[in-house]
Amino acid sequence: MAVRHYTLDFNLSTPVDSASVVPGLLSVFHEQELTETVHDTNGHGYLATFVGKNGRLVILRVHSHGLVTIDLQCHEGDNFAQLDNLLNALEKKLKVLLSGNITRIKRLPALVRGAKVDRYWPTADGRLVEYDIDEVVYEEDSAYQNIKILHSRQYGNILVLDGDVNLAESDLAYTQAITGNGRENYAGKEVLILGGGDGGILADIYIDQKVIDGCKMHMRRTCGNTLDNLRGDCYQILIQDCVPLLKKYVQEGRTFDYVINDLTAIPISTAPEEDSTWEFLRLILDLSIRVLHPEGKYFTQGNSVNLKEALSLYEEQLGRLSCPVDFCKEVVCVPSYLEQWVFYTAWKK
Amino acid sequence: MAVRHYTLDFNLSTPVDSASVVPGLLSVFHEQELTETVHDTNGHGYLATFVGKNGRLVILRVHSHGLVTIDLQCHEGDNFAQLDNLLNALEKKLKVLLSGNITRIKRLPALVRGAKVDRYWPTADGRLVEYDIDEVVYEEDSAYQNIKILHSRQYGNILVLDGDVNLAESDLAYTQAITGNGRENYAGKEVLILGGGDGGILADIYIDQKVIDGCKMHMRRTCGNTLDNLRGDCYQILIQDCVPLLKKYVQEGRTFDYVINDLTAIPISTAPEEDSTWEFLRLILDLSIRVLHPEGKYFTQGNSVNLKEALSLYEEQLGRLSCPVDFCKEVVCVPSYLEQWVFYTAWKK
Repeated sequence: MAVRHYTLDFNLSTPVDSASVVPGLLSVFHEQELTETVHDTNGHGYLATFVGKNGRLVILRVHSHGLVTIDLQCHEGDNFAQLDNLLNALEKKLKVLLSGNITRIKRLPALVRGAKVDRYWPTADGRLVEYDIDEVVYEEDSAYQNIKILHSRQYGNILVLDGDVNLAESDLAYTQAITGNGRENYAGKEVLILGGGDGGILADIYIDQKVIDGCKMHMRRTCGNTLDNLRGDCYQILIQDCVPLLKKYVQEGRTFDYVINDLTAIPISTAPEEDSTWEFLRLILDLSIRVLHPEGKYFTQGNSVNLKEALSLYEEQLGRLSCPVDFCKEVVCVPSYLEQWVFYTAWKK
Repeated sequence: MAVRHYTLDFNLSTPVDSASVVPGLLSVFHEQELTETVHDTNGHGYLATFVGKNGRLVILRVHSHGLVTIDLQCHEGDNFAQLDNLLNALEKKLKVLLSGNITRIKRLPALVRGAKVDRYWPTADGRLVEYDIDEVVYEEDSAYQNIKILHSRQYGNILVLDGDVNLAESDLAYTQAITGNGRENYAGKEVLILGGGDGGILADIYIDQKVIDGCKMHMRRTCGNTLDNLRGDCYQILIQDCVPLLKKYVQEGRTFDYVINDLTAIPISTAPEEDSTWEFLRLILDLSIRVLHPEGKYFTQGNSVNLKEALSLYEEQLGRLSCPVDFCKEVVCVPSYLEQWVFYTAWKK
């Protein structure tokens, strides 16, 4: 059973003495049969905890610098109307007690902790976001990663690899961006896709059979019927390490009109000399450019537009390849990401 | 000064006795000089609070149904590396103590409470989301509403009216959607825009001079120079109640090729007979259709695609106007909204 965690915060223009606030609130707590403990904070404001029936817990803090915070935790099966009333009563009382001194009242949507279906999948730039996820459609651990397909009411099914939102059925914008946003004519061209059309294999160079299994069942709005067979009229899916394959192509002198690298986002780590993910990225990048036709184009995703340091490190790597390249980038809104995403195009100078 | 609130939760496959968990953790708390209070929960699991220096507070709960939750609150000026170490140590110990019984470990980005710049602006469908806001650029209370313009690193300046995200400089998709997504030719046409090009006036029928003041200074990527003068070569901005104006147009028999209603989103309340916002919406809608040319089009925003009940109530209203209309809708990703948004087109039958 999950725990609901409500917060209610008052920012004040001037610090307030807890003696002018706390006594006025106690009646509210006592009405709800909450048992009070006042804690010694060593001069860091007022702190009391209140424990009630059904595992209810309230924490009241009057911080000495002009902030009042209230936490209310209860079990998922509790009487929410009653708890709403409790929070309403506290908010109303505090509005009166702190009248004229309030600069902000903030009551956030409750955090749901320990729920069967987890709705919190932070963005690449580290922000807390709640998704409208109502069902875990698929979950498997492969030898390489944890694979989940989660159902979102607005984005359709979402592929989540090792906790990272990879692609949702709503995210045509991702596929369009990584294929040149409609500016390319692919007819009759040789195209090499690293990572597959399923949304990319994070931090791993293998196409993961279990990702294919999940996507061909639950992400058909994204993949259509392309994953049903490993070979079609004009495509072939190879489930193998792409590094030896790329090396073989280099050796054979085989080139492609387009190389689309959908293996992994740019690593967030900003220590490219030590991090093996960066090493892997450089290796693939170099091999990819080597198999690129002189007039060809290389497409890849970057990362969140806010990870400026990681992006500029990536651009540095582009300047250090065995063939010199030019590049351009584009910022795209991928619906289910809840953040703006950078895509790169590179070509041989 | 703000408070940082960290959470660390362990979901378990089977309930666990606190006696097998708590003693192993105490050394971690004692190393950090935290003073412990164990609370009586009336049989609702184990609950202890730990108070430390600098206003630190830790709450440890071992819920009787197989969930361990840890809260850590500290002041914004505290030593974050030390607190990270504390959480790492707790996570590591718990992994050992609960080994084989863990189904999920969840450590969310810290909630920042009471900060000078508030980053939490919930979606219309009530989800908790954190924005990358780093500055309050403009804030005014007009006679009608609270107006904020907040700077987001990725979305540019965002207009927030009464706590609702209205429009960001990144949101060309909104303006395109409410003008027909490039399918219309406006050359030489008569267009009536209700609510202004600044992103819409929520829950109010007046164009608010203070919104114009803020937007013309801080949302120029959205409005260009159109708000600098109330009259241009081919437009006129009227800052007045639109109801008498619409009534006058009806009386004069004046019609428009396009009516774009950007006044307000569909009310979330699902009691249209009682709610004055719905009454207002119906009035404007009816007058707008009456001034629409027989071949004309009416464009308006709906609301979050997840608010299915509110949207279908709106569609019911469309069936009850004094002129019968047909309509269609489109779901659009407006970057700064962090949710999918519905737009309507209506026309006379």
